[in-house]
Amino acid sequence: MKVIKGSVTAPKGFLANGIKAGIKRSGRKDLAIICSEVPAVAAAAFTTNKFQASPVKVSKLYLKNKTHQAIIVNSGNANCANGKIGDRDALLMAEFIAKALAVDAEEVLVASTGVIGKYLPIGKISGKISELVDGLSEKNGESFSEAIMTTDTRSKEAAVRFKLGDSIVTIGGACKGVGMIYPNMKVEQHATLLCFLTTDAAISKKALEGALKVALGESLNMISVDGDMSTNDSCFIMANGLAGNKRINWKDKNYSVFLEALKLLTKNLAKMLVADGEGATKFVEIEVAGAKSDEDAKKAARKISTSNLLKCCIFGHDPNWGRVIAACGASEADFDSDKVSIYLGKVKVFSAGARVKKYDENSVKKLFAGKNVYIKVDLKSGGHKATAWTCDLSKEYVAINSEYST
Amino acid sequence: MKVIKGSVTAPKGFLANGIKAGIKRSGRKDLAIICSEVPAVAAAAFTTNKFQASPVKVSKLYLKNKTHQAIIVNSGNANCANGKIGDRDALLMAEFIAKALAVDAEEVLVASTGVIGKYLPIGKISGKISELVDGLSEKNGESFSEAIMTTDTRSKEAAVRFKLGDSIVTIGGACKGVGMIYPNMKVEQHATLLCFLTTDAAISKKALEGALKVALGESLNMISVDGDMSTNDSCFIMANGLAGNKRINWKDKNYSVFLEALKLLTKNLAKMLVADGEGATKFVEIEVAGAKSDEDAKKAARKISTSNLLKCCIFGHDPNWGRVIAACGASEADFDSDKVSIYLGKVKVFSAGARVKKYDENSVKKLFAGKNVYIKVDLKSGGHKATAWTCDLSKEYVAINSEYST
Repeated sequence: MKVIKGSVTAPKGFLANGIKAGIKRSGRKDLAIICSEVPAVAAAAFTTNKFQASPVKVSKLYLKNKTHQAIIVNSGNANCANGKIGDRDALLMAEFIAKALAVDAEEVLVASTGVIGKYLPIGKISGKISELVDGLSEKNGESFSEAIMTTDTRSKEAAVRFKLGDSIVTIGGACKGVGMIYPNMKVEQHATLLCFLTTDAAISKKALEGALKVALGESLNMISVDGDMSTNDSCFIMANGLAGNKRINWKDKNYSVFLEALKLLTKNLAKMLVADGEGATKFVEIEVAGAKSDEDAKKAARKISTSNLLKCCIFGHDPNWGRVIAACGASEADFDSDKVSIYLGKVKVFSAGARVKKYDENSVKKLFAGKNVYIKVDLKSGGHKATAWTCDLSKEYVAINSEYST
Repeated sequence: MKVIKGSVTAPKGFLANGIKAGIKRSGRKDLAIICSEVPAVAAAAFTTNKFQASPVKVSKLYLKNKTHQAIIVNSGNANCANGKIGDRDALLMAEFIAKALAVDAEEVLVASTGVIGKYLPIGKISGKISELVDGLSEKNGESFSEAIMTTDTRSKEAAVRFKLGDSIVTIGGACKGVGMIYPNMKVEQHATLLCFLTTDAAISKKALEGALKVALGESLNMISVDGDMSTNDSCFIMANGLAGNKRINWKDKNYSVFLEALKLLTKNLAKMLVADGEGATKFVEIEVAGAKSDEDAKKAARKISTSNLLKCCIFGHDPNWGRVIAACGASEADFDSDKVSIYLGKVKVFSAGARVKKYDENSVKKLFAGKNVYIKVDLKSGGHKATAWTCDLSKEYVAINSEYST
């Protein structure tokens, strides 16, 4: 099992494309499609925000269909808060693709990312559908990854390949961030974080949903750029069975192999996202061990990963670990504060609820001067753990987000 | 009932002082005291952070005493995460003052604010106790307010005066912020936000505790600078009875008058705090109306007030109200997203779950170009409301917090 170069077109039978439709003022690519040559089973997870963008509503509705053949995506406009006009436009996006591919509208899923509260230029989209579909190719995975970007500085894609019985199975993926990133996506149910996964594995819809839920819980749902949850977060996976493996069913022997591969891919994509977080200069990994439950470990790790103060001192190369303590203590995780230890890299700075009198300050300063910062909190209250990923909070983040919509 | 100029020494019988003890590297004032000429009843609220600074532990313990006579405060060092050495130092601070004033140590409360995880220079403090106490005066309220500051750019103090029967009652207050501000203080039970209130009202301890709890819930506990909860937040109130009013008891007629005055003062102090939030260029008020419960209104208002994205666009004069929606929908408040309306100033931009097709964009831009930004969200789901206060998120905030401890 290994991570390979590749994108949503790495698995057999998936084609993609990404083009310029004039939605973004920058003139960059902003309309994209993934298509499976044969009907695929699909699963998806959507934002738990109470305000849901129109494409999220439409995709939730259409996900009830047994099979799916395509996903259409636009960047530069979230199609959120646009009322009935927004709902109609999201439905139209699916309908345009359905017509062009001669499939049912219910077989097409929809995603959007960009500014909230602006009507989608649906005329521009409709005028570009034939160009979009005509360019569908297994060679255009990269143009897909580019066309879904907003404030991303680079496209994010990867694939995993592994053996299942006698078959070679591939899972491909592409995703975009990189602000309004604090997703908590639920299967059948927020950056917008958009993530598109494809696989040629033969797998039941139920098994696909189960694997997506577990993998997200340890990967994309454990990242934060700014603690702001979007109205548009969506993660889709389509499985078309062309690898020819014996069909994977819910929790059978091969399910765990598939799940491990999916975890490997989604963790890779998650790390790429925070490393390209808006204004990010550093990648930060926060591990919480010794928790009473997985839930406690996640609560503490996520709370620490969203501390503005901690993220500022990481930007400033300042190992001010008191901010780890403050954030950990503000979380709703259950633990005994007198037992806790904290490590910056491999250096223990806090032990049994008190500072370590003398520790290797040079080593800690060196860690904080580097590109990757590792922080570990051992709650010493149980055997559960979780890892969260984030980036630093820079002046550039403020600059990007004070000039975004206008 | 009106807000007047004044500080913790505005009520009868309260003396204060603030001096330089060399705790801060800047050489500014960093050691302060409030003292009542006669024994006073006291109530306090402390951070709900699981890591509690040593002065918080000591004040909680000593608060059980029936009466109190003084509060000692240092800035420049939080005395947190210092283990048993920290606990001993906080106890020593109280003991030094008790000796100098010839009262019991249990009658002295303690507060600290500054960097976490550095030992307190207790020798410097002990060497300055006689200077601190010798300078106690009703004229030194302002020096008290100055000595409790950390990254504050100005001191914050105010007083309220009102009639109770034939007596004139005064409540005075001083507070400091201005980073690590997302308090959720519980009575008997976080920036460090430090707030000191004094009153010459005669009031029972139980009534004082009750009033503090209610007033905090609508004032200091409704502010946010950065969403980071401190290990040191503390709010104290001492009442010495020298106004000569008929003693106020829990929920009697005069209790509500006292409570209104206390709310007026604490709301004033709360607004001063966010207006001086780290790096702040704007004051932001977020009102949530039409909620199913007070709790729902507070949840939505507080979540919106901590949105980094919203705070960045306010810094950038950009009325990107989509970020209000995203934050409101990410809150745990219970409401129907299809009913919600949003106003920027007096302009309705979002109605019944969808953008208003045409609204006065110039008026909205003007509002966001000003010093004070008012946002109102009407959930249209009930009759409860709440107001939260915050500031914008500026490049200066990042600069301040990337260079703080080193």
